[in-house]
Amino acid sequence: MIFYYAPQTCAIATHIALEEAGAEYETRRIDFAITEQQSAEYLKINPKGRVPALVTDQGIITETPALLAYVAQSYPQARLAPLDDPFAFAKVQEFNSYLCATVHVAHAHRMRGARWVDDEAAIAAMKAKVPQTMHACFELIEQEMLEGPWVMGKEYSVADIYLFTLSRWLEGDGVDVQDFPKVAALKERMQEKESVQTVMALNAV
Amino acid sequence: MIFYYAPQTCAIATHIALEEAGAEYETRRIDFAITEQQSAEYLKINPKGRVPALVTDQGIITETPALLAYVAQSYPQARLAPLDDPFAFAKVQEFNSYLCATVHVAHAHRMRGARWVDDEAAIAAMKAKVPQTMHACFELIEQEMLEGPWVMGKEYSVADIYLFTLSRWLEGDGVDVQDFPKVAALKERMQEKESVQTVMALNAV
Repeated sequence: MIFYYAPQTCAIATHIALEEAGAEYETRRIDFAITEQQSAEYLKINPKGRVPALVTDQGIITETPALLAYVAQSYPQARLAPLDDPFAFAKVQEFNSYLCATVHVAHAHRMRGARWVDDEAAIAAMKAKVPQTMHACFELIEQEMLEGPWVMGKEYSVADIYLFTLSRWLEGDGVDVQDFPKVAALKERMQEKESVQTVMALNAV
Repeated sequence: MIFYYAPQTCAIATHIALEEAGAEYETRRIDFAITEQQSAEYLKINPKGRVPALVTDQGIITETPALLAYVAQSYPQARLAPLDDPFAFAKVQEFNSYLCATVHVAHAHRMRGARWVDDEAAIAAMKAKVPQTMHACFELIEQEMLEGPWVMGKEYSVADIYLFTLSRWLEGDGVDVQDFPKVAALKERMQEKESVQTVMALNAV
């Protein structure tokens, strides 16, 4: 398999999952500084012009929640999701869907405002509200969603990997992760994992 | 099961899936006109203050992509998703994730701009761009995603139900569905289904 990523993006989540699954894959780095995600060559891989994308023998998969479930289902021995219980699986997916459609979107209003407005004043207004919206998202996660010690309670899952990935954005968004003790503890534990350190090293260069 | 919905929202997707699965469920209507989704009573069901929510024997599930996969997995005889092939399942989930995190979000900038900005001028700027962003989303769906006749090709799935649900928003967003012949044809075929007519009748009153 070939995994397309760009450093410090949400691609980190799928990357960690692939590492933990023991998957065999190569990586291809996409350079956002030269807008390589919009190059003709990359748009053949992902017409949406985004990362991550995973090229498999059967075809190409994009979108983090889909990729996380795919890795969990394809490598069941890694126990990255509750695969035999539709309700438990749905709870993992519910959490991932919230991260994808609400938390990532809230964050994107800081750097990617031009997706939704054209004028500069509106883009500035979006940026100004990001600390508030991101704080509200993580407050909800801390109070209502994260059972502890892992998102789903005792069982580790791709939801933890994804939450870790987005929790790394809080500082840049003007939010202190220490406001959310369970999230902060989960982030610490994740950083100790070999899989995470491997992926972080690749993302740092 | 108890299904919480509000008329003309994305809850329609899960509602149609429940009908097609032959699930036994009751419905509870949430009245957005009196902001019932933010009432103390409803926040016990869904602390996010959104619809849909499905109360099951095991607990409560929210988020459309999670619910669609849950219904498909819980009622396999309805054949609402390719359950035995992680890649094919991932493609359905990839599509649903795009609808949830990109298309629904683009649409929400017309009526729900206050989620992301405080000032009125910025909210107006968001509204102004919605026809453009929604057109771009559906252009991508038409050209790159919808295989035809169904989203996944010959096999009908929850992706079709979800796409139908969001395609109903195009007119209000200032976009003509006829610009996208494959989407328009899918919408027509969906409207002929008994499941869809049942749910639409409940949403109309």
